[in-house]
Amino acid sequence: MTFAELPEDPLNRFRFPVDEWRLVETRPSTSDLGVTESLFAVGNGYLGMRGNPEEGRDAHTHGTYINGFHETWPISHAEAAYGLATTGQTIVNAPDTKIMKIYVDDEPLIISIADLVEYERILDFRDGILYRDLVWRTPSGKRVRVRTTRMVSFTDRHLAVMTVELTMLRGSAPVVISSQILNRQDLSDEYRTSEAVPGVGFDPRQASAFEHRVLEPALQWRTPRRMTLGYRCANSRMTIAVGADHELVTDNPYEVRYSLEQDLAKQVFRITAQEGVPVRLTKTVAYHTSRSVPVAELSDRVRRTLDRVRVDGVEKVHAAQRAWLDEYWERSDVRIERQPHLQQATRWCLFHLAQAAARADQHGIAAKGVTGSGYEGHYFWDTEIYVVPFLAYTNPVMARNALRFRVSLLDAARRRAAEMSLRGALYPWRTINGEEASAYYAAGTAQYHIDGDIAFALCTYAEVTGDREFMLNDGVLVLIETARMWADLGFWRNNGEPEFHIHGVTGPDEYTTVVNNNLFTNLMARANLRSAAAVVRELRERNPRRYAEICADLELDEQEVEDWERCADGMVIPFDETLGIHPQAEHFLDRELWDLDNTPADKRPLLLHYHPLVIYRFQVLKQADVVLALFLHGDEFTPEEKRADFEYYDPITTGDSSLSAVVQSIMAAEVGYPGLALHYFREGLFVDLIDLHGNAADGVHIASAGGVWNVLTHGFGGLRNRSGVITFDPRLPVQWEALEFPLQVRSTRFVVRVEQESISFAHVEGPEVEVVVRGTAVTVAPGDPVVVPLDGHGRRDTWRPSVASLVGDQRADGSRLRAEVPPHAGAWHAPFGD
Amino acid sequence: MTFAELPEDPLNRFRFPVDEWRLVETRPSTSDLGVTESLFAVGNGYLGMRGNPEEGRDAHTHGTYINGFHETWPISHAEAAYGLATTGQTIVNAPDTKIMKIYVDDEPLIISIADLVEYERILDFRDGILYRDLVWRTPSGKRVRVRTTRMVSFTDRHLAVMTVELTMLRGSAPVVISSQILNRQDLSDEYRTSEAVPGVGFDPRQASAFEHRVLEPALQWRTPRRMTLGYRCANSRMTIAVGADHELVTDNPYEVRYSLEQDLAKQVFRITAQEGVPVRLTKTVAYHTSRSVPVAELSDRVRRTLDRVRVDGVEKVHAAQRAWLDEYWERSDVRIERQPHLQQATRWCLFHLAQAAARADQHGIAAKGVTGSGYEGHYFWDTEIYVVPFLAYTNPVMARNALRFRVSLLDAARRRAAEMSLRGALYPWRTINGEEASAYYAAGTAQYHIDGDIAFALCTYAEVTGDREFMLNDGVLVLIETARMWADLGFWRNNGEPEFHIHGVTGPDEYTTVVNNNLFTNLMARANLRSAAAVVRELRERNPRRYAEICADLELDEQEVEDWERCADGMVIPFDETLGIHPQAEHFLDRELWDLDNTPADKRPLLLHYHPLVIYRFQVLKQADVVLALFLHGDEFTPEEKRADFEYYDPITTGDSSLSAVVQSIMAAEVGYPGLALHYFREGLFVDLIDLHGNAADGVHIASAGGVWNVLTHGFGGLRNRSGVITFDPRLPVQWEALEFPLQVRSTRFVVRVEQESISFAHVEGPEVEVVVRGTAVTVAPGDPVVVPLDGHGRRDTWRPSVASLVGDQRADGSRLRAEVPPHAGAWHAPFGD
Repeated sequence: MTFAELPEDPLNRFRFPVDEWRLVETRPSTSDLGVTESLFAVGNGYLGMRGNPEEGRDAHTHGTYINGFHETWPISHAEAAYGLATTGQTIVNAPDTKIMKIYVDDEPLIISIADLVEYERILDFRDGILYRDLVWRTPSGKRVRVRTTRMVSFTDRHLAVMTVELTMLRGSAPVVISSQILNRQDLSDEYRTSEAVPGVGFDPRQASAFEHRVLEPALQWRTPRRMTLGYRCANSRMTIAVGADHELVTDNPYEVRYSLEQDLAKQVFRITAQEGVPVRLTKTVAYHTSRSVPVAELSDRVRRTLDRVRVDGVEKVHAAQRAWLDEYWERSDVRIERQPHLQQATRWCLFHLAQAAARADQHGIAAKGVTGSGYEGHYFWDTEIYVVPFLAYTNPVMARNALRFRVSLLDAARRRAAEMSLRGALYPWRTINGEEASAYYAAGTAQYHIDGDIAFALCTYAEVTGDREFMLNDGVLVLIETARMWADLGFWRNNGEPEFHIHGVTGPDEYTTVVNNNLFTNLMARANLRSAAAVVRELRERNPRRYAEICADLELDEQEVEDWERCADGMVIPFDETLGIHPQAEHFLDRELWDLDNTPADKRPLLLHYHPLVIYRFQVLKQADVVLALFLHGDEFTPEEKRADFEYYDPITTGDSSLSAVVQSIMAAEVGYPGLALHYFREGLFVDLIDLHGNAADGVHIASAGGVWNVLTHGFGGLRNRSGVITFDPRLPVQWEALEFPLQVRSTRFVVRVEQESISFAHVEGPEVEVVVRGTAVTVAPGDPVVVPLDGHGRRDTWRPSVASLVGDQRADGSRLRAEVPPHAGAWHAPFGD
Repeated sequence: MTFAELPEDPLNRFRFPVDEWRLVETRPSTSDLGVTESLFAVGNGYLGMRGNPEEGRDAHTHGTYINGFHETWPISHAEAAYGLATTGQTIVNAPDTKIMKIYVDDEPLIISIADLVEYERILDFRDGILYRDLVWRTPSGKRVRVRTTRMVSFTDRHLAVMTVELTMLRGSAPVVISSQILNRQDLSDEYRTSEAVPGVGFDPRQASAFEHRVLEPALQWRTPRRMTLGYRCANSRMTIAVGADHELVTDNPYEVRYSLEQDLAKQVFRITAQEGVPVRLTKTVAYHTSRSVPVAELSDRVRRTLDRVRVDGVEKVHAAQRAWLDEYWERSDVRIERQPHLQQATRWCLFHLAQAAARADQHGIAAKGVTGSGYEGHYFWDTEIYVVPFLAYTNPVMARNALRFRVSLLDAARRRAAEMSLRGALYPWRTINGEEASAYYAAGTAQYHIDGDIAFALCTYAEVTGDREFMLNDGVLVLIETARMWADLGFWRNNGEPEFHIHGVTGPDEYTTVVNNNLFTNLMARANLRSAAAVVRELRERNPRRYAEICADLELDEQEVEDWERCADGMVIPFDETLGIHPQAEHFLDRELWDLDNTPADKRPLLLHYHPLVIYRFQVLKQADVVLALFLHGDEFTPEEKRADFEYYDPITTGDSSLSAVVQSIMAAEVGYPGLALHYFREGLFVDLIDLHGNAADGVHIASAGGVWNVLTHGFGGLRNRSGVITFDPRLPVQWEALEFPLQVRSTRFVVRVEQESISFAHVEGPEVEVVVRGTAVTVAPGDPVVVPLDGHGRRDTWRPSVASLVGDQRADGSRLRAEVPPHAGAWHAPFGD
């Protein structure tokens, strides 16, 4: 499969018809169970449930996840060394409340073998409910309609509501509905079976299986209407209580049986179902978790959550969900006019962003949200670079929560810095509880840029929202301690004049590790140092008392702040005069070029087929690195440099990381490759919907979903934040008529509409605000939209030179040059469906 | 502790008196049990027994090791990646036959609590026997003399002989001697307890404990005089049989009891011992092991070994041992006149070299020989670089065996190269069975120089011994496949003219990993490529048939051989014009200098106190790297370059590896720092005797022992092999009167004697041979020694500039320069006895 082979609309539309507000599946399949479990997952950022069928059978992973609810385990290193991560952290598969098994004439409903007359599974982005509607011709020839719904509440994060509506359409029959809470997390085998990487035998992207029983039973309790189970994690000592209420409404006669065991609570409804007489079962469940609160108290909280719903009724919960989403869409929806297939996929991404971030509250936003155990439920830089900007412009409260979470980890980051013989704070590359959990330092701890990423997100949030109070109270602490880290990590060298160098780091590209002066890292560090100095100065000015307090607490003085500025000013930024490009790191261009053209498809992604030492000695990228810097720090580069850098790196970027395509799309749009920009946009947009990376079964790629919003607003909309000044230089694809998206800047909300000939701004609420379109200031104020005419959407090239011709014989003599990388040869990977 | 504090004679001479031919301990101690177990170990390169007391109690590690007898286990990586080593290999602690417990009046003899009137433990280098002689005042006031001997035979590698001679000196008493074969290898806890690194909690230099039962019982068998146990390793399926014969001679009445269990065979002698009537028990034991032969057959082999001794008598075994050692010393002894303390330590090293190498036969020579489980019994480059040269000049058969072992691993090395996406063969960095066992690639697999080291040893052996037959039949295969690996690993770059670069490798210094164009590696690769080409050409000339056969087998053609020469000629050799030194690797000099001066003693060795990422970003060395290249490829450097390189690297070399001191000693002698040369010589000489690295308990540092011979002959004797021409340029320490050592060159043996005013050569046997003294040819022939007058021993400086002054402000501005490393600040570590 090559570049050209990603179709304009890659989904199988017979099975998944186009629908702008819903993801609809019209026939079930066991061939991609894991993928559709992720696609149809429901969650609210705290509680997530995979799209498993209510009957419980036929699953890739029966998954219920609670953000931050994790077990710890000692990491065993094959060869130990000082300071390697020691505490593994893995999200726990929480007790499963999704199960409502259905039997008709004592025959179980099992989707994969049932004779289905009708079938539809629908995830509705407007009401936040997963629907399933089917008609089953039973083995004895009867027909029964089964409608189910499943909802995880955005307004009450502990709450989920499920319903089953069952009607015998033809014939009467004894019907059984067995509603359960099942603790199955110890059945660890299933985690190991990936659909993704046949024949490879390992996949570092998956969660590891536990070798011990994780959830120790601590409580079992029931009343005729309610059942509750409680557990404590064996190592982490985290606690959980899960309860379920039931309400059966029917005119059919029925009886109820109960059973309560350590790992299984059941409420079994035995119904004598008459033809045409419906049965409706409502199951309300609540999950409460804690780091330390006893299970008995959590059980009380469960009771209170369930009592409230019992009083208010499920309809109120459904209505609140709809209202919450109405506001979410008003703040967040991006409209691509007359592109319904792209519109649907875009909304699916935005809906999953809500599901990942809405109620993360005091937790982080995991790489897979709460849709799967991929990457063990860890938080990475994905949050700060790919998700927080979206939240800052649309849902500032969520952005603030995500950043407050990092503030809460500051002490742990200080301890980690000390372990790494550094001053200040070093955030872990991956973590749940704040401790470094990356067991492979070269592509983990060495990514010191995490500190700069967090600082970048803090500044973006504060500049876009104008929330100086958060910055000056809490954010400043993070900026100070991360700036300290950089000042200590780097050192001065004298090349003619003193330069500040940062050695032994890994940038975003994980196919190039432990290098000196990684461009991305140095730029992020420079910005971090400068913003720390600026914010400290602002604090001294605006709140001398708080300033004095911080100086005393952190032993900070003006001398140190000046030192940060000197480090920033002296920061070395590698540039190659001959090629006119920025090397990804010092000496990166000395490396041999990887021959991507002659790397067969079955050797992709590279990380699963080549020893790290092999990959590391070549010029080959897992993901955008310099190109990400071009985006995040665009003002540090001339347009010519951006174009040259993009042209150099794009063909040697494999895209083996899902974080790559969206960034390449934005920069392709900016530097003038609109076709490529659209291609990469589709790669990001459909990464899970067509399982482009072969691991959608492990959960939804939340960063890529955030990247999709970034492509639409920043790539095609041309949005940039320049130290609080909001600017636009649109790049609307020639195939599109209009693109529309709302933004909140400070306390002003407005809608941006990009068309081929103009960009316009429609004020929604708040005081007037100034934005800049291609250098011209535009005031957005109440009243009619301001329309700014455009003369096109930037330079548009379709041809790009190959790396080989750029390289010429400065780089290698012809006889040994391995790679003549053609354009786009590196852009494809893990094809879906062939 | 600083440089000056390593005393001239650092041993505690009250406890270990000077004795030129023996290591003598005059009082026992439990404070350094593990160290003395290693120091007093006996072995023959196949079978080794630590110096545990016969009574079995009070041990750091009860150790019996058989070269190559190992268990395998799956290496579990905290984060998996393609091609990481998967099969762990760990030497097995074999069933213990050393145990002969002694009871008098039913009171056990336990050295640590016994009231000892006399005590001596002696390892005699001339007869190869470990003696212990003590008089015990028993709790009831009686006195008994106990004399024991323990010997592992150099002439029959499966055989060990132990004796107990016991006499009641005052009083009569019931005496019991319980002689055992005890399988205790599953008691893995004891392996974890290191005396070495208190408070650190891990030490990558130690063997890991097994988590499963390793030796599965397969045979138990006994007769009245003999008992045998047999086992099979659970995973590796290797087999072992161990048998013991007993002979009791006494005029006292006695009876014998037997017991035979799966893990314990006992023969218990109950003696009514009369005052003055001696008891003599002789225990003869045999060990046979195999990769696949059934235990029953091994048991037959045990029987045959024991039967032969029963017929011949133990005296004959002792005599053969003495005769073998007489020849060994004639071939290998190095005499330092009038320096008895150095003489003793030197002979201890040479004796342990015999014990490590003599009967390794088809196995490798492990880092710890057969004296401990340190480094899991693995074979490293230590053999080729530190031991084979010694063997080639003194005991060519042993050198040939060691190299034949590498030939036997060629297929495994080919498979490993394929895994690493390389042509040819890549030898594992550490292994027992030929598979890579290094679980940490950065300081393991990345040391590709292992291929060059093996090629170097092959060429050294062939040039010194003249054994072209081995080279042209077997060695050539290794040279071809290793040359192929280099040609594929490197690549051509065009810097003005085409250069051959090798990226992503680790040199000998493990504090600097995964770098480009490591000087040592590139020099070893170049020599490897050239010698491969030369030997293939020689073969074509001398044995066209074999040449044709190899060309067909290996798809080799003249084109490829020419390509090797082109790669060698184009090989880039980094050099810094400003400093006039060779960077250890490209861009090494860009790094920050480690502040060794301000690194406290309790932070040494660095690897146990700093994260690898911290260590790796500094200029700081674990061990000689460029300096080793200066020694091995001296003709590639001018004298000025050698001196400048040595002066640059020596102060930033921590010596945290025991492989460092001996190399620094040789080069210090050559470039004119005689005081430093002697200091480093003593560091190497006493590394185990005073436990300089804190891990002598894990076994004897065999490479360092080999290095001691290298310092004496090459460092002070000034010996070099220049493509088969043997040259001398001595550097006798001014404190020494004379140094004398035998050499064999081709089939000629002669003795070299270096004095302050002359060097002389005394022919021993074989045809006349030419050597070169400082450019002048000297013929060594039968008759009187040839005496060549010398005008001193090279340049002699005592002052050295610090790195900081060398570096100047080309390197860093004053305000940020961390290190002003004083001379020798890096030379000390892990002090003993304070």
